[in-house]
Amino acid sequence: MSAPKKVVLAYSGGLDTSIILKWLQTEYGCEVVTFTADLGQGEELEPARQKAEMLGIKPENIYIEDVREEFVRDFVFPMFRANAVYEGLYLLGTSIARPLISKRLVEIAEETGADAVAHGATGKGNDQVRFELSAYALNPDIKVIAPWREWDLSSRTKLLDFAEKNQIPIAKDKRGEAPFSVDANLLHTSSEGKVLEDPAQEAPDYVYQRTVHPEDAPNEPEFIDITFEKGDAVAINGVAMSPATVLTELNEYGRKHGIGRLDFVENRFVGMKSRGVYETPGGTILLEAHRGIEQITLDSGAGHLKDSLMPRYAELIYNGFWFSPEREMLQAAIDKSQEHVSGNVRLKLYKGSAFTVARSSEASLYSEAHVTFEDDAGAYDQKDAQGFIQLNALRLKLLAARNRRLK
Amino acid sequence: MSAPKKVVLAYSGGLDTSIILKWLQTEYGCEVVTFTADLGQGEELEPARQKAEMLGIKPENIYIEDVREEFVRDFVFPMFRANAVYEGLYLLGTSIARPLISKRLVEIAEETGADAVAHGATGKGNDQVRFELSAYALNPDIKVIAPWREWDLSSRTKLLDFAEKNQIPIAKDKRGEAPFSVDANLLHTSSEGKVLEDPAQEAPDYVYQRTVHPEDAPNEPEFIDITFEKGDAVAINGVAMSPATVLTELNEYGRKHGIGRLDFVENRFVGMKSRGVYETPGGTILLEAHRGIEQITLDSGAGHLKDSLMPRYAELIYNGFWFSPEREMLQAAIDKSQEHVSGNVRLKLYKGSAFTVARSSEASLYSEAHVTFEDDAGAYDQKDAQGFIQLNALRLKLLAARNRRLK
Amino acid sequence: MSAPKKVVLAYSGGLDTSIILKWLQTEYGCEVVTFTADLGQGEELEPARQKAEMLGIKPENIYIEDVREEFVRDFVFPMFRANAVYEGLYLLGTSIARPLISKRLVEIAEETGADAVAHGATGKGNDQVRFELSAYALNPDIKVIAPWREWDLSSRTKLLDFAEKNQIPIAKDKRGEAPFSVDANLLHTSSEGKVLEDPAQEAPDYVYQRTVHPEDAPNEPEFIDITFEKGDAVAINGVAMSPATVLTELNEYGRKHGIGRLDFVENRFVGMKSRGVYETPGGTILLEAHRGIEQITLDSGAGHLKDSLMPRYAELIYNGFWFSPEREMLQAAIDKSQEHVSGNVRLKLYKGSAFTVARSSEASLYSEAHVTFEDDAGAYDQKDAQGFIQLNALRLKLLAARNRRLK
Amino acid sequence: MSAPKKVVLAYSGGLDTSIILKWLQTEYGCEVVTFTADLGQGEELEPARQKAEMLGIKPENIYIEDVREEFVRDFVFPMFRANAVYEGLYLLGTSIARPLISKRLVEIAEETGADAVAHGATGKGNDQVRFELSAYALNPDIKVIAPWREWDLSSRTKLLDFAEKNQIPIAKDKRGEAPFSVDANLLHTSSEGKVLEDPAQEAPDYVYQRTVHPEDAPNEPEFIDITFEKGDAVAINGVAMSPATVLTELNEYGRKHGIGRLDFVENRFVGMKSRGVYETPGGTILLEAHRGIEQITLDSGAGHLKDSLMPRYAELIYNGFWFSPEREMLQAAIDKSQEHVSGNVRLKLYKGSAFTVARSSEASLYSEAHVTFEDDAGAYDQKDAQGFIQLNALRLKLLAARNRRLK
Repeated sequence: MSAPKKVVLAYSGGLDTSIILKWLQTEYGCEVVTFTADLGQGEELEPARQKAEMLGIKPENIYIEDVREEFVRDFVFPMFRANAVYEGLYLLGTSIARPLISKRLVEIAEETGADAVAHGATGKGNDQVRFELSAYALNPDIKVIAPWREWDLSSRTKLLDFAEKNQIPIAKDKRGEAPFSVDANLLHTSSEGKVLEDPAQEAPDYVYQRTVHPEDAPNEPEFIDITFEKGDAVAINGVAMSPATVLTELNEYGRKHGIGRLDFVENRFVGMKSRGVYETPGGTILLEAHRGIEQITLDSGAGHLKDSLMPRYAELIYNGFWFSPEREMLQAAIDKSQEHVSGNVRLKLYKGSAFTVARSSEASLYSEAHVTFEDDAGAYDQKDAQGFIQLNALRLKLLAARNRRLK
Repeated sequence: MSAPKKVVLAYSGGLDTSIILKWLQTEYGCEVVTFTADLGQGEELEPARQKAEMLGIKPENIYIEDVREEFVRDFVFPMFRANAVYEGLYLLGTSIARPLISKRLVEIAEETGADAVAHGATGKGNDQVRFELSAYALNPDIKVIAPWREWDLSSRTKLLDFAEKNQIPIAKDKRGEAPFSVDANLLHTSSEGKVLEDPAQEAPDYVYQRTVHPEDAPNEPEFIDITFEKGDAVAINGVAMSPATVLTELNEYGRKHGIGRLDFVENRFVGMKSRGVYETPGGTILLEAHRGIEQITLDSGAGHLKDSLMPRYAELIYNGFWFSPEREMLQAAIDKSQEHVSGNVRLKLYKGSAFTVARSSEASLYSEAHVTFEDDAGAYDQKDAQGFIQLNALRLKLLAARNRRLK
Repeated sequence: MSAPKKVVLAYSGGLDTSIILKWLQTEYGCEVVTFTADLGQGEELEPARQKAEMLGIKPENIYIEDVREEFVRDFVFPMFRANAVYEGLYLLGTSIARPLISKRLVEIAEETGADAVAHGATGKGNDQVRFELSAYALNPDIKVIAPWREWDLSSRTKLLDFAEKNQIPIAKDKRGEAPFSVDANLLHTSSEGKVLEDPAQEAPDYVYQRTVHPEDAPNEPEFIDITFEKGDAVAINGVAMSPATVLTELNEYGRKHGIGRLDFVENRFVGMKSRGVYETPGGTILLEAHRGIEQITLDSGAGHLKDSLMPRYAELIYNGFWFSPEREMLQAAIDKSQEHVSGNVRLKLYKGSAFTVARSSEASLYSEAHVTFEDDAGAYDQKDAQGFIQLNALRLKLLAARNRRLK
Repeated sequence: MSAPKKVVLAYSGGLDTSIILKWLQTEYGCEVVTFTADLGQGEELEPARQKAEMLGIKPENIYIEDVREEFVRDFVFPMFRANAVYEGLYLLGTSIARPLISKRLVEIAEETGADAVAHGATGKGNDQVRFELSAYALNPDIKVIAPWREWDLSSRTKLLDFAEKNQIPIAKDKRGEAPFSVDANLLHTSSEGKVLEDPAQEAPDYVYQRTVHPEDAPNEPEFIDITFEKGDAVAINGVAMSPATVLTELNEYGRKHGIGRLDFVENRFVGMKSRGVYETPGGTILLEAHRGIEQITLDSGAGHLKDSLMPRYAELIYNGFWFSPEREMLQAAIDKSQEHVSGNVRLKLYKGSAFTVARSSEASLYSEAHVTFEDDAGAYDQKDAQGFIQLNALRLKLLAARNRRLK
């Protein structure tokens, strides 16, 4: 790979990506464009602008964008249509943000004539894979620079030395090391590393930052109504909202009731197991509600097909293949199923749990006439079950007869 | 189908199966053998013996058996090895009990020279299918009598008239109709029908019988340890127990903390949607714990294959195909994966939730040396990620280049 | 089911459906509308009109239509995009025609105010299921009459008696019984029953009607080029053609070279095994060619997903679920994959075989620069393979280390 | 990776692996053990011994073994139980041999105290992955040396120079370059590279080495009978044979009749497409025959599950994951299905095709009584189909009613 001339860096404004910024300038002597996105991580973005300027980035090379609506509308919601869960439990909060960042990095590179993009993910994790597969899928000629895999700043001391030598300001609380590492966006906060590295040790309480402890949540349950249209949440308690607003509101409900915590050991794509603590307050409520509305509006054939495709779909997102033909194929199938997934779900929120208690829809497939214990007025002929069972049993009978014959 | 001469009836001792018993005697003039199983439903069985005798069943034709250990060891535990969940949420508590009952009905038929078996399931539900597919799979020549699909006792009044005319005692509280229908065994209690028939109406509190309301559960969390061997729970808090005892104990923990409730609209195999309320206290804890121990002992290749097979496996059990070659094939694959699923899981139980907080195992695949944020002493070479990503990206690059070329 | 007043009959003009026509008139006293479709079965349709008139059908109630283009364009081609094969070998020639017939029956019922449709399939086969599921999926209120499941004309003698009594002309060669039963359309000819009922006996030569015996095929191979656009064949040897014309032409190539024969024992949806002889001359060539063009234009991620979905897709079509949400979901995924499946395939046809020998496409993903044994000018860095293998191996190493530790 | 001290080399005796042998000695200064396996590739092995000795290998370090029986019994046959086909067409003849070679390399390393193994596969292909994943899965501490990824002998000239300089004899016909590259074993011969690199060009006739051209095959068909037990072929024409002998015999039948040729563009695991010509004469016959016997002995539930698992199973083998938990899980499921796959299949072999014409088995599930067009004496009640269809249609009717209601 020839040396990059101009690189778009995913820049948070924090110490690590500031060091990367400076390292790119000094190591490669290349022009740096910074991209700072508001994905709902809950941090001010303007300080990132000031810091970038201070590090010598030209104003026209500083991109700061609020991508929350795009994030929820084009990434989070499509994923939730699938009820995607990785390894039974993880709601993919980090995985789903990476492709959007890469997409903007590549787009900005094309706008600014940059030939490379750079990210601050390490060589041990999944995020490097997600960033880079997305970038290459969108621009096959782009260069990707992953400083953590290249440089020799492999210890905290070396990093701080580099920062000092290059006049990068270090916040006082960054002198010491954080007891764990955090990633956050509108969908979730993940924590991993250090104090969490032994999966036999319970995570300390202070790891949880996004939700109250269930023990501290209100002693009374709260009920909310979520309205869906074509598989997406569009209103809460009857108030219509944009995608990002829906998720923001649900996050507040989830935070308050201690909903969406997960202490988890997962299999990384790069081959090792890792332990993380995830908080997905709004997403956990949304998943429960989406399942609730599907229960009455989705046919069993469609639903069972979705269930069988979901693990593969979730694995693709986890592994970084959002921009792949197979994810798009699965998305086409899933979206096709959501045409009538519209209606209302009522949930009870209480001390860590979100629990569907009622659902209604004009598109409901539930037929009280068919299921009733009372007289069904001819909607269903119980005698049909005889033939249904006989023909489903036929092959089993032939098998049993064969097996008896051979004994 | 020629008329049966001797029939083995799945007999609870309750009003409905007593009416069936008498109806079989009068309609077909056949000898009846009763089979009453203790599956952990929490009812005394001796009254069933007395009632059967009173209805004219010969003592040698009355079979009363405690099958709880067989139920958990040979049906519940194998199913939990698969993390089986139907339609995302239902733990299959009713489904898994039916094949065992059918197996004993068929075995008793063969022992007693009966040519038929009978059950009390209606023509609208799944249980008829489960009973009958199991029976036919075990004995292709057996006759199965499903009175609810045959007789004209289609209203409560007619049933009670038949009972009175045939001197079947009717408990006072059975004169009126129950507000919903219940099925119970060691794994769960299900409630459906009547007051539950409108899925837009929240289930009344009194429907829940097996667990305390989360609001009434202890205000302090409780922590328990579950030990697994080859995928099965074998001890709680270090005390070794038989399968049925493990589940009984977990049920008590779950009951106390309000764990395992589910308000659910599901797709029946016979084609309609129905709404049920399920309480699976111990099973819910067990599923969480099993996932916890798999997190550190199961390889990702095995785990992801299991996840992708699970929906089909669950559907087979739900639909009544326990005794089918495809369920047995899947079981062989699942059991193969569980050889090293051994170790301890620590859970926090609190107001409706069971939450894994720690896990440890001699068979752990988790490698702190690989995952650590600290120096990993050469366990992992971050530069390998470069090649890993490049080759995973290659097809995506070729795709992107093709797509750009064609524009 | 109340008696039908007006029924649309799938009418071939042959003896059996003529008997059904008369039976509907006499048994139900209902008005009959006939629908005779040209699906490429190779029979004149006008005699069906005359016969219908002779049996008292009003001219405005006689529908005769050439649906060959719709059949290939909307049913056969979408199915071939999936490379659909049932149980490893069967190209679904009968299965794919039924939904189209049902669709027209239901549409004509709605146009003519009929409340029922009728078909001539027996109660043992798959076709009854396919006809009826399609009809109900398109009109939930339609009645379906399946005379073979209802009447008592269960022997050849009774049928002929009924025909004579009702002045239905019987062709001389129909007095005796055919040695096997045939279904044909533009995609295939199937033969089953009677002389074919013993799967241990080789099918007699005379069963094959649609293709020459490979031994009688030309001694010289013939080469043809097929052009695809978005997964569909659009030209042969450079000559653009309509869908039905493409298939007609390919049938002629296949016939001449003895291609597409299959002697097969399959599992019917109704639970039994049956043996059929299929001839799918053009379809067999088309499948080979479609695979050929996909080889260079379809990415592996898309291709492997398609391969894994195909058995389910094929099973849905075989079982009669063409008009189901899950088939439509799978179709959406499959169609999504075909956007760039365009180009040319060259095949060798010779004595029973069609064999891809070359393929080319502007949308090719094949990169000689990457694959070459010669110097690849930097397209591919062989050292990347090291990291790729190391990270793919990591979990296997951790497993092996664990297993050694536990020994 | 520290330098290896003693390495076991997969040694063919040819020029390339002789160069590797010498390179290992000179580059790493390490002791070399050679392993030469008879996998049925059709070459004498003794010359490899002489050449190894000549290159300075101690006699006790030369391993020459006939592993043909193990190859067919433990690798080929288990794979054929699954009807494994990669990307619709490829019978995996190269893929299945690699794990066996790696297994012996690792075993010999442990016997001889070697700390490394080496192979002659390049950095562009699948074989390096297969060799190395297998080795690491069997011994997590083994070193693997892949000279083609390491050395600078990247051109033919450099290789020959190295050979001359190191006194490695060069056969006259190796001076020039072969027009394509070949791999062979008892299951197949594969050819790729050079003259085959353009997939739009038909492969020259001389590429085919293992089978006669169909045009040159006998003008009369030949019929053979293959007997299976539990899914494996055990006899031909009634003569019992060992696994390797069965395959050797079938190869001869296939060779003679020009059966098993495939011109194919496939997706390599390393991300690129490549074109190969495969000849799998006996395997092609075996696959057809195995499908034939499964047709009458395998239940549809088992068969359809097998079909749906097959693509993943084949992909695992292709990608080199033979020794992985998920392949073993799938094998457990597949083997479970084969318990009654026993009986006889009769095939017609003719000019490139193997075609099942008859099959019989004591374990047959085919029931003429059920399927017959004649009176079935009560084996099957056609009226059962009514209920079967009604309940299968129920959800489709509810869907159609919903969709009409919403219009």
